[in-house]
Amino acid sequence: MTHFYAIDDLRSYIIRYLQRWDVTTEDARLTSDVLLSADMRGIDSHGVIRLKSYYGSRLAKGLIDPHAPLSVVKETQTTLAMDANNGLGHPASVKAMRLCIEKAALNGVALATVRNSNHYGIAGFYAMMALPEDMIGISFTNSSPFVAPTHGRKAMLGTNPIAVAVPSAACRPYVLDMATSIVPIGRITVYQKNQKLIPPGWGIDQSGRVTEDPSKVLEGGALMPLGGTELMRGYKGYGLGLLVDIFSGVLAGSGFGEEVLSASGDQPTRVGHFFAAIKIDAFRDINAFKRDMDQLLNGLRNSPKAEGEDRIYIHGEKEFEKAERAAIEGVALSDVTVKTLVTAGNEDGVPFDLRPLKIE
Amino acid sequence: MTHFYAIDDLRSYIIRYLQRWDVTTEDARLTSDVLLSADMRGIDSHGVIRLKSYYGSRLAKGLIDPHAPLSVVKETQTTLAMDANNGLGHPASVKAMRLCIEKAALNGVALATVRNSNHYGIAGFYAMMALPEDMIGISFTNSSPFVAPTHGRKAMLGTNPIAVAVPSAACRPYVLDMATSIVPIGRITVYQKNQKLIPPGWGIDQSGRVTEDPSKVLEGGALMPLGGTELMRGYKGYGLGLLVDIFSGVLAGSGFGEEVLSASGDQPTRVGHFFAAIKIDAFRDINAFKRDMDQLLNGLRNSPKAEGEDRIYIHGEKEFEKAERAAIEGVALSDVTVKTLVTAGNEDGVPFDLRPLKIE
Repeated sequence: MTHFYAIDDLRSYIIRYLQRWDVTTEDARLTSDVLLSADMRGIDSHGVIRLKSYYGSRLAKGLIDPHAPLSVVKETQTTLAMDANNGLGHPASVKAMRLCIEKAALNGVALATVRNSNHYGIAGFYAMMALPEDMIGISFTNSSPFVAPTHGRKAMLGTNPIAVAVPSAACRPYVLDMATSIVPIGRITVYQKNQKLIPPGWGIDQSGRVTEDPSKVLEGGALMPLGGTELMRGYKGYGLGLLVDIFSGVLAGSGFGEEVLSASGDQPTRVGHFFAAIKIDAFRDINAFKRDMDQLLNGLRNSPKAEGEDRIYIHGEKEFEKAERAAIEGVALSDVTVKTLVTAGNEDGVPFDLRPLKIE
Repeated sequence: MTHFYAIDDLRSYIIRYLQRWDVTTEDARLTSDVLLSADMRGIDSHGVIRLKSYYGSRLAKGLIDPHAPLSVVKETQTTLAMDANNGLGHPASVKAMRLCIEKAALNGVALATVRNSNHYGIAGFYAMMALPEDMIGISFTNSSPFVAPTHGRKAMLGTNPIAVAVPSAACRPYVLDMATSIVPIGRITVYQKNQKLIPPGWGIDQSGRVTEDPSKVLEGGALMPLGGTELMRGYKGYGLGLLVDIFSGVLAGSGFGEEVLSASGDQPTRVGHFFAAIKIDAFRDINAFKRDMDQLLNGLRNSPKAEGEDRIYIHGEKEFEKAERAAIEGVALSDVTVKTLVTAGNEDGVPFDLRPLKIE
């Protein structure tokens, strides 16, 4: 069953829930924007289902500071090194990306890092903030280790996503938002729950061998980086995951590698982020750029299909279609998500009492 | 058999050969630096073996202009849009990256694009130019189409490499230099010549089906992007290849997609490049950064190995070791490379008459 909720209702609820943990209205609103965007775009693993597990429970235990200031560590005309001081990742990241965009508007390009932050939701949200400004937006974050390096058997790097958003004219924008592992750990859990084998290459067991048994990945094994085995050039995915950790962790002066801790633990996670904004008309006329983007994207979409396929997608296209549907029909939440919200709301004294628009 | 040549001898020869086609001494020297770096680092597919096929033969036919100026199309304090005017890709790229580094030294970060260029050799060379400046260097280039988008069957994107170089302290720098396809087209050719099957996932036939027959990839088929099939998340590799084309082609105002032509054709290739330099101490103390890089890289190298493996590599590590060996033993060229040079030299009136240091 899918439950459809009015966007504004869900937003109000998320804000109320976060205010319960003493988050300011502004920060709660920014956090709700990012969480709702995930659910609307169909990336429900990063949406409201995490409201308690990643955020509320940590706020309750004092593991995330609802009043942490976002402070500037170092600043130039084009760069900004910031410290979230263990506050929520979403508002810190929205503010950092806003400042990045302001600097890029003045100087052509700007980069920002955020140290000592927390899980920030979908990477693509921050990259997409650049789109209305006719800029290219970039967003990376590190996370606690789930991925083993090529030839290794221990999880040493997070699923460290790369997000890049680029505006176009008539086409929907290009929005790449990809983990640098093949699949997220949650995907392995789903296979385990359903007692299904995973495709060979997604993960390894504790000895470093490729395994089709999801339990072996979850119990002492690790995810494989994009590409998979060495034969399939998995070291490239490993290199991309490492790149994200260098930018989000080392350059930011945040945690990196095994220093980045899980949101399920009882220590600050020390997650770091990296953001960039590039003003397109510093390079060429924005309309010419957008026309060429359309030509490139339409060229791909209209190119000959493989046997049995009827559509070639551009990155972000499926998600834009889902978000457009959600804007009309409401935000679609699964049974599991609704149950999770109901339980959390009851436990935390903020009952999830929204009436759905429809249930299908 | 491997033939070892003194670096200076090879450099002089490359310069003489390019001067034969009226390339200036400076540009010939810059080109030789990039080509030699490829051979020294063991990336021989991008080294001197291409001296005639990619460069000399095109200079001879007037398809590359040896006197093309590198002109500035648009410039700000942090950005530089340039036009190579169909000159050699290597000198244009070295100059663009130098300017990028100069701007980053003053302003923290700088980006440069180059349009209407040609094959520029190994992407990593330009990214690595940032290392002695304590900067992070980035280099992308597009190329003629070899890769099909996910669900497609026609090659629409180049093997579009991503290169990023990051300095460290005691460890060798991190140098990612990866095509966004699983393998380059040359690797498929090698399997075809040796009458061997390719691993399933490297390429597709003309109907878009994964094939193990290298001939079917080469005759109307296409390479698969990093990741391979949709099940293995090949759309991420497709997204990365598209990203590189957006930056190198669309942002640069150069050719993109199918507009980028092969070096074996009789039209200007319209290749585009993208470069970036990031000054690390705009974010944090450079020594603290480098120490953390060492910690991250050593942590990965020293992490537990998979069964049967005895070493975990950092990106660029193998290549640095090869380059260090080449600095002592000379540049190792294969029989095929030497034969290619001898034939080209005789045809073009610049006999390849170097005496090897040794042959093994």
